[in-house]
Amino acid sequence: MDTTRLIGVIGAGSCDDTVYTLAHDVGYNIAISGAILVCGGLGGVMEAAAKGAKAAGGVTVGILPTETKDEANPYIDIPLATGLNHARNAIITRSCDVLIAIDGSYGTLSEIGLAKAMGKEVVALKSWDIEGLIKAESAKEAVELAIGVLESC
Amino acid sequence: MDTTRLIGVIGAGSCDDTVYTLAHDVGYNIAISGAILVCGGLGGVMEAAAKGAKAAGGVTVGILPTETKDEANPYIDIPLATGLNHARNAIITRSCDVLIAIDGSYGTLSEIGLAKAMGKEVVALKSWDIEGLIKAESAKEAVELAIGVLESC
Amino acid sequence: MDTTRLIGVIGAGSCDDTVYTLAHDVGYNIAISGAILVCGGLGGVMEAAAKGAKAAGGVTVGILPTETKDEANPYIDIPLATGLNHARNAIITRSCDVLIAIDGSYGTLSEIGLAKAMGKEVVALKSWDIEGLIKAESAKEAVELAIGVLESC
Amino acid sequence: MDTTRLIGVIGAGSCDDTVYTLAHDVGYNIAISGAILVCGGLGGVMEAAAKGAKAAGGVTVGILPTETKDEANPYIDIPLATGLNHARNAIITRSCDVLIAIDGSYGTLSEIGLAKAMGKEVVALKSWDIEGLIKAESAKEAVELAIGVLESC
Repeated sequence: MDTTRLIGVIGAGSCDDTVYTLAHDVGYNIAISGAILVCGGLGGVMEAAAKGAKAAGGVTVGILPTETKDEANPYIDIPLATGLNHARNAIITRSCDVLIAIDGSYGTLSEIGLAKAMGKEVVALKSWDIEGLIKAESAKEAVELAIGVLESC
Repeated sequence: MDTTRLIGVIGAGSCDDTVYTLAHDVGYNIAISGAILVCGGLGGVMEAAAKGAKAAGGVTVGILPTETKDEANPYIDIPLATGLNHARNAIITRSCDVLIAIDGSYGTLSEIGLAKAMGKEVVALKSWDIEGLIKAESAKEAVELAIGVLESC
Repeated sequence: MDTTRLIGVIGAGSCDDTVYTLAHDVGYNIAISGAILVCGGLGGVMEAAAKGAKAAGGVTVGILPTETKDEANPYIDIPLATGLNHARNAIITRSCDVLIAIDGSYGTLSEIGLAKAMGKEVVALKSWDIEGLIKAESAKEAVELAIGVLESC
Repeated sequence: MDTTRLIGVIGAGSCDDTVYTLAHDVGYNIAISGAILVCGGLGGVMEAAAKGAKAAGGVTVGILPTETKDEANPYIDIPLATGLNHARNAIITRSCDVLIAIDGSYGTLSEIGLAKAMGKEVVALKSWDIEGLIKAESAKEAVELAIGVLESC
């Protein structure tokens, strides 16, 4: 029986300080919960979430769009270079049990669409206002809602 | 110099009669313009657009998520089985010069996000209300707007 | 009922004159047979085969590894930019009904392996000496053997 | 500076006892070296290598072809469901620093071809006899040769 829980954090490769802090706290809380953090491995929200997860002693996986792992942020334990460019978004959403979208632009929107099309739940934290998402107001609430989804499966 | 124009039509695999007629007319007008129609190759909006393109003597390409081409609708000239499941959405958006979104659910939303993240223009016809899309009110207008994008490149 | 036949030609992106002529003749004979030629869309064997197919009035599809279609050779009717890099090899083998390998290096070897792993037949023309391939001695024989595979399905 | 080392083990999804033991010992020695084991996550050689790595307290990543992680063998710490089918082979080879091929059929051949096309070294242990591979006679030697490749980079 597989008990590994993978929580994905999706968001843009660059962000302001407020969003960075939010993503950091989401990553921190994911690690505290014992789940593995999966993200796109680059900067911005992805870096902040990975940094937060490492601060709490968690494990981080970065599914990179690039052909090498050189672009991975320094808080990624397991950098996976896919060489798939944007098609790697589908690997992030496919491999995670639940996703948390933080802020984000069109790339994040594509991941929200992919996740929902795959039947996965997405918790939205100051992100796109799309029907069918679970809204959260804080980093702590976002992770609690994500854990709630996992426990109801 | 490459002059081939690929226009993508994205939309759900099942749809009502109104949307089917709309997608049919979009496909018809794409073929009339001389562009090649690219779609996901399945039913609903994809089938309607391909049927319309064939009615005007056009060429249709279906980029299928499946491992075989058996699922292609009968109006696809060139059925390409990718076996990539949802990741094939990124191939549709990457390979087209411009896209027309018709109605659609989360899969279509993911394609809108992917296309915009790749820097492509998307014409929206009774589809998702997302910032940055070009709105059209009719099939004819949607194709005219798409052609306009191509000519301004 | 789908009667479209897709024959893939796989081989290196650069080659000597002898191999270029061989690939050209393979493409020519594929077009004469009425099948659509699918290849990787770049130079060398891919260009030669596409050039041959166009000389016989055929239709050519190029499944490119790149993010744009700028790299497509001038004999490709339908250039599909996948942005998948080497992972696009799996799309070529998955989408074709049968493949012809001409000469080739490690990329071609990967396509031979992928095709056979997917249960497809591969005709080898001065290519890798791998168990389970159908050996051909000339361009004409290679296409005849490929057509034979299609007709026995 | 990224110091994570990812060693891939490639081989068939079913194998005899001799090969299973060999793959187990390769996984064990990879874990002893401190590197992370990456494999396809399924049975046979993949399972044996992951089991060996876990016996030595290592970390294992499984890059699955499937849409769910249900098919992962029980020794995979981080199961990544890609939904890409055979195209996932390119993710395994792209993400690893060096690969060890053990026995194997056409899927393994495709991974050998992909790895070499990407400029990666492949250590072959009772596997395909392909030009350009590094031959090993034992599990211990295979891992030593792989580590040697990493240290010369």
